[in-house]
Amino acid sequence: MTRAVPDKGTNGLQWEAGAISCAEWTGVKLRDVLADAGLDLATPGPDAKHAQFEGAEAYGASIPLSKVLDAQGDVLLAFGMNGETLPADHGFPLRVIVPGNVAARSVKWLKKITVSDEESTTQWQRRDYKCFGPNVAKPDWSKAPSIQEMPVTSAITRIQRPEAGGKVNVEGYAYSGGGREIVRVDVSIDAGKTWAQAELMGDEGKGSKSWWWKRWRFEIPDEGDKGGEVLVKATDESYNTQPEDY
Amino acid sequence: MTRAVPDKGTNGLQWEAGAISCAEWTGVKLRDVLADAGLDLATPGPDAKHAQFEGAEAYGASIPLSKVLDAQGDVLLAFGMNGETLPADHGFPLRVIVPGNVAARSVKWLKKITVSDEESTTQWQRRDYKCFGPNVAKPDWSKAPSIQEMPVTSAITRIQRPEAGGKVNVEGYAYSGGGREIVRVDVSIDAGKTWAQAELMGDEGKGSKSWWWKRWRFEIPDEGDKGGEVLVKATDESYNTQPEDY
Repeated sequence: MTRAVPDKGTNGLQWEAGAISCAEWTGVKLRDVLADAGLDLATPGPDAKHAQFEGAEAYGASIPLSKVLDAQGDVLLAFGMNGETLPADHGFPLRVIVPGNVAARSVKWLKKITVSDEESTTQWQRRDYKCFGPNVAKPDWSKAPSIQEMPVTSAITRIQRPEAGGKVNVEGYAYSGGGREIVRVDVSIDAGKTWAQAELMGDEGKGSKSWWWKRWRFEIPDEGDKGGEVLVKATDESYNTQPEDY
Repeated sequence: MTRAVPDKGTNGLQWEAGAISCAEWTGVKLRDVLADAGLDLATPGPDAKHAQFEGAEAYGASIPLSKVLDAQGDVLLAFGMNGETLPADHGFPLRVIVPGNVAARSVKWLKKITVSDEESTTQWQRRDYKCFGPNVAKPDWSKAPSIQEMPVTSAITRIQRPEAGGKVNVEGYAYSGGGREIVRVDVSIDAGKTWAQAELMGDEGKGSKSWWWKRWRFEIPDEGDKGGEVLVKATDESYNTQPEDY
């Protein structure tokens, strides 16, 4: 379940519901580039476990090599965005796109790729973008796995209250990592006591799996509009759903 | 979060926390068999979307063909279990093993395999093993997707209270579908107000992904043992976690 304001803060930047957009990327598959560079895709060897990326600034990150080698993984070296040359803010001349994974792995202004037996040694890979138990005060960063695929999530982006007559319209998006499609979005207007299903809108992205967001809308029934808090939770095709708290 | 007794029932059999075991299977990969039978694994054609399985009794089910074609999917035709000939109760002479998916797709006493553009037409595929919104009284079976990969779950299997002295020991398992490894198990002894992390035990299965369960144990601190309800929730490597309710 996603609330507009989190009940308790996290360390670092407060991203709240996260930052998300849905673009069409043009590029070449990283697996093809690695094959051209001499990597044996079928048997890359026991030391070939991670693909590390370095950006032209300080940033760096890595992903499991299995994600790159997976023909359905769709890991791209992108030079185009929405049919145009990749903008500077989005990583010109070349960036990685790792669909289904946290965007922190989609390194911009790409300078170097290394196939390695270990994860990237940057602070962003080793000491950031990890989660710990809710009561952990002093986290052991070495024990928690780096976030790669994202959990199921959702957000309300707009509540439209018509000036005269008409029903209140609620809109938002839902998303799950790993290419898992959103199959259901539940909305509550009574603080979670009852739930109804939102209408899922017909976005269809490209690629091997459901990498894109699912937009949804919901009309609050006349008798239900008490002006209270609206809650949303999503379910993906593996029937993972959002917890009420963390 | 898993309670010993569900708050509300579901239609059909009450499996509660589910039925689970962890065995070692011997067999041949279904993708190799389909290739031998003439299926082009790289371009199986637009109509090749599902692998349907028929058992020697009435039962039948299907899985997406992409799961079969995935070299890391590990879909087996199994004739051995734990180093011995497959027992009759487990599907002798041949059964399907679909790791990471709901066991209802691992058809026993296998008689026939069909590559099709549609799911199996059996009631077990079309009118069973699906989930609906919590307020849905009359489900539209055609709209909900069949359960394939499983969501993250966990269960308490034993609470040992020592006869004299010593700490109360709690044990259980956790599991997630799709080969997603369990990375954390949280236990609460105060009705969910606070959580501590269980020790994860060192099970390691075979295969391309984490198809196996993760056993865990937790010692209730002396000051914490008030004889109250023990709760457990698990988190997988995609940071999906269990909801408190459905």
